[in-house]
Amino acid sequence: MRTIGVIGLGIIGGVWAKNYDAAGVLVGAWNRTAQPDFPQWKREASEVAEAAEAVQIVVADPPAVQSVLDAILPALGPGKVVVQSSTIDPESSERFLKQVTARGARYLEAPFTGSKTAAAEKKTVFFLGGDSVLVAEVEPLLALISETRFHIGTHQQATAIKLAMNLNIAVQMQGLSEALTFARKAGVSDETFFTVIKKNVSNSGLVTLKEPKLRTEDFSPQFSVKHMLKDMRLASRTRGCEEMPMLDTIRGCLHAAAQAGYADEDFSALIRLLGDKRG
Amino acid sequence: MRTIGVIGLGIIGGVWAKNYDAAGVLVGAWNRTAQPDFPQWKREASEVAEAAEAVQIVVADPPAVQSVLDAILPALGPGKVVVQSSTIDPESSERFLKQVTARGARYLEAPFTGSKTAAAEKKTVFFLGGDSVLVAEVEPLLALISETRFHIGTHQQATAIKLAMNLNIAVQMQGLSEALTFARKAGVSDETFFTVIKKNVSNSGLVTLKEPKLRTEDFSPQFSVKHMLKDMRLASRTRGCEEMPMLDTIRGCLHAAAQAGYADEDFSALIRLLGDKRG
Amino acid sequence: MRTIGVIGLGIIGGVWAKNYDAAGVLVGAWNRTAQPDFPQWKREASEVAEAAEAVQIVVADPPAVQSVLDAILPALGPGKVVVQSSTIDPESSERFLKQVTARGARYLEAPFTGSKTAAAEKKTVFFLGGDSVLVAEVEPLLALISETRFHIGTHQQATAIKLAMNLNIAVQMQGLSEALTFARKAGVSDETFFTVIKKNVSNSGLVTLKEPKLRTEDFSPQFSVKHMLKDMRLASRTRGCEEMPMLDTIRGCLHAAAQAGYADEDFSALIRLLGDKRG
Amino acid sequence: MRTIGVIGLGIIGGVWAKNYDAAGVLVGAWNRTAQPDFPQWKREASEVAEAAEAVQIVVADPPAVQSVLDAILPALGPGKVVVQSSTIDPESSERFLKQVTARGARYLEAPFTGSKTAAAEKKTVFFLGGDSVLVAEVEPLLALISETRFHIGTHQQATAIKLAMNLNIAVQMQGLSEALTFARKAGVSDETFFTVIKKNVSNSGLVTLKEPKLRTEDFSPQFSVKHMLKDMRLASRTRGCEEMPMLDTIRGCLHAAAQAGYADEDFSALIRLLGDKRG
Repeated sequence: MRTIGVIGLGIIGGVWAKNYDAAGVLVGAWNRTAQPDFPQWKREASEVAEAAEAVQIVVADPPAVQSVLDAILPALGPGKVVVQSSTIDPESSERFLKQVTARGARYLEAPFTGSKTAAAEKKTVFFLGGDSVLVAEVEPLLALISETRFHIGTHQQATAIKLAMNLNIAVQMQGLSEALTFARKAGVSDETFFTVIKKNVSNSGLVTLKEPKLRTEDFSPQFSVKHMLKDMRLASRTRGCEEMPMLDTIRGCLHAAAQAGYADEDFSALIRLLGDKRG
Repeated sequence: MRTIGVIGLGIIGGVWAKNYDAAGVLVGAWNRTAQPDFPQWKREASEVAEAAEAVQIVVADPPAVQSVLDAILPALGPGKVVVQSSTIDPESSERFLKQVTARGARYLEAPFTGSKTAAAEKKTVFFLGGDSVLVAEVEPLLALISETRFHIGTHQQATAIKLAMNLNIAVQMQGLSEALTFARKAGVSDETFFTVIKKNVSNSGLVTLKEPKLRTEDFSPQFSVKHMLKDMRLASRTRGCEEMPMLDTIRGCLHAAAQAGYADEDFSALIRLLGDKRG
Repeated sequence: MRTIGVIGLGIIGGVWAKNYDAAGVLVGAWNRTAQPDFPQWKREASEVAEAAEAVQIVVADPPAVQSVLDAILPALGPGKVVVQSSTIDPESSERFLKQVTARGARYLEAPFTGSKTAAAEKKTVFFLGGDSVLVAEVEPLLALISETRFHIGTHQQATAIKLAMNLNIAVQMQGLSEALTFARKAGVSDETFFTVIKKNVSNSGLVTLKEPKLRTEDFSPQFSVKHMLKDMRLASRTRGCEEMPMLDTIRGCLHAAAQAGYADEDFSALIRLLGDKRG
Repeated sequence: MRTIGVIGLGIIGGVWAKNYDAAGVLVGAWNRTAQPDFPQWKREASEVAEAAEAVQIVVADPPAVQSVLDAILPALGPGKVVVQSSTIDPESSERFLKQVTARGARYLEAPFTGSKTAAAEKKTVFFLGGDSVLVAEVEPLLALISETRFHIGTHQQATAIKLAMNLNIAVQMQGLSEALTFARKAGVSDETFFTVIKKNVSNSGLVTLKEPKLRTEDFSPQFSVKHMLKDMRLASRTRGCEEMPMLDTIRGCLHAAAQAGYADEDFSALIRLLGDKRG
């Protein structure tokens, strides 16, 4: 498989597409908001699907993926592969797979983790869901933009592990916010708190990543409240996972943060709901 | 300060006392349940306070600390130091300090983190709360049994940072349990889950520590449900921290686990409430 | 409109159908589990739709309604009315209305409240959603089996008010259970508790209805844990209502009750999770 | 017992004292903020205790009761009765009883329900905790200002039933707010919602009481967010009741409401956190 198109030229998709282009494999690019100067820009999403063997979709949520599929399904057929990299739920994944395979094309679920910086450094981590033959065919393309590719299992399992990671991250963020606020209320300095936690068994990469934001109250988004809320809602809609105590609580916190006007801030802004910085 | 006595010869206190004894500084040891063969055993807690310059208390909770103080206060006076290492709340710390200083003695709050193994390897981490002169006097003794000693600030701040760390740990444990259960319900293998999380920003020492327990369902206690529940209740009783969403949720989960019969199991047994191992 | 058929001959549907039959308007009845001796029994659901002007559906949940519609849609057309009385969510209601009206038939949303006893005494309360002309045409039939019929507004609004009532009831049940347990833990007798609450501003019909169950611990179902859990999940899936604090909590409690083995008991069995009857 | 003094001349205490005065039994009145023109005003709380056989205390919370007791204990002795009508927790009640009986006086726990209007109409409802002899002696005085007096049992049980009633009320208020918001988001009118709920099994006096506030968004206080939050915290501190799901949730909601600036509004202002009036 030698050619790929990218649909969804947001923060991450745009970086990937340029990396694909630099590697000489990009044959199409499309975005809901037109970016006519983008390499390999096509006026219609369907033209991307016509031009490329693999079509990678990276948009906001399941309804956005459905819109893209509605546009490109007529252009799909044997020999085509949809590489679905948006964060979606297992049920949506099943629905999308059926739509794509009904056209004779193939479907690879490929959610990912990693920031814009990671994408730029080709350090994205992919979670792949599909059969081994398909994974083997698509992997050389993904290898051009990523460092690690885990073959998780089925398409639904790939979506599940992505949601599981985000659940873990979101819960950790709120836990860290409450622990920091607890210490602050006693008058413990942030310097002391972070010095201590780095020696603690609960230290994680998230502490390192969010420490500057928490200390300076700079909530410019790396990953926004609204996106994390969307993901947690997807997790809660997953069959058998409707009632998980922390998942319910973190959804409630993210929703309250969005209501309080922090929807577009980094999800570390959760700490804002815990009251004044100093007790 | 050259002599110390230990009151509370449980899993950790017993190890410390033996390390003090090996270093030649232990002059008294007492425990509610008699251990007459223990080095420097005293029949009464008050005899420990009479024999030692520093009396280190490491018992279950604030009422247990109060019982010990009731017994030893008459033996305290100028020149004596109480080193309080049980996990307690800021308000109790204030009350204990007043009782001790009213006798002319001094009070150092010294909660800690670290397992029995860490204690045996002298790798306990202490959070010290008290004035610098007192810390400087007591630290050489604590250095005999520990690797790291953070001077946090006041006695109340030392209790607060300890509770904050446990809050963070407890929340992480439940978050990890939900994330793992979420993945399992989709049929993702534990092997895959832990391989993936180790590359994730949410990876922490707690993942490494609890992975074997979660995978083998061996919930023999490192730190029990009932002890973590006790600590989370102390946190919730702290002024200004009565309503924190995750803290409330984790207390509810720990309480439900205790009710379900898991009070004496490791707190990783929280995952048991999330349903069958496989969805 | 003079003839009606009933699909779903459960506890309530069976009573209604017999009342319709006694009134001489029943021309068809069908149930997933065959009841060939039932008045006007038809072998296929579609035969009910062929025989009757109005087809009233009263089954478990949206997927069950969809199954019924799949079977009867071919038999629907101008002149036919689907009267949908199962508890469903607004989104499902919209979908069902579209399917029915696409066949040229009309769709009346008609959820209800009231127990089996109420149904037998023709005291069911209906919440009607649809245009006034349709309501006026169908109401004479519904009047044969019910006491009160509220015209709520649109089809979606009728489903919403039904879910809102059940949300209120479920929350009240858990609140009452906690209040009673709180009093019991202090050793207050049930006799005293219920005497007092009947003079309190929080007294409601639910207290009267559930007092005997709570006092005798007879959790034989009037409305089961699993059905209330299903309804609360529908409520949580409703757009804009995904995060309501009590709704999230009551779902968690109902789920925990189901997991603990009480799925088929009355939803007053929620109190079982609050520990021993006596503190 | 023929004479009574009142300490705490707030909204309710002031009305009671005037009713006692009208009945000719008031011999002392005191309030933290001086009201020198009040009938039987005394400059010191202790003078009230000196003048009256029964001293009724109605202040904000356990610390406020303790302050009053600190002032009047020296004036107490055989023949005196403390009638404690503030909302407190069982543990505080036990402590206060011990302090009073240590002086040779007697202690009657007498929390109540009822608004200012109810107090003015002598329709207060008392929950009495103490032995029957004491209740019989004090009851004629209380009968001058109240309609109903339940003899609950012990002093601790009287506090428990009061907290249990408030728990039930607070949970109902939030449940009602969510149900109303759920209906509003679907566009159901408030008129329809309240018409329907009044025929529903979940209808209660609280619906009648709060309907005007909810419909007009008039959150002037009948019972404030901060007072209800205080009571729910007392409930959560009660041994054996630390983790009740709805209690934890309602504390969280009340706390969030206080943080959002609604501390002094009526607790029906809880609905403000659920978003815009119209979806």
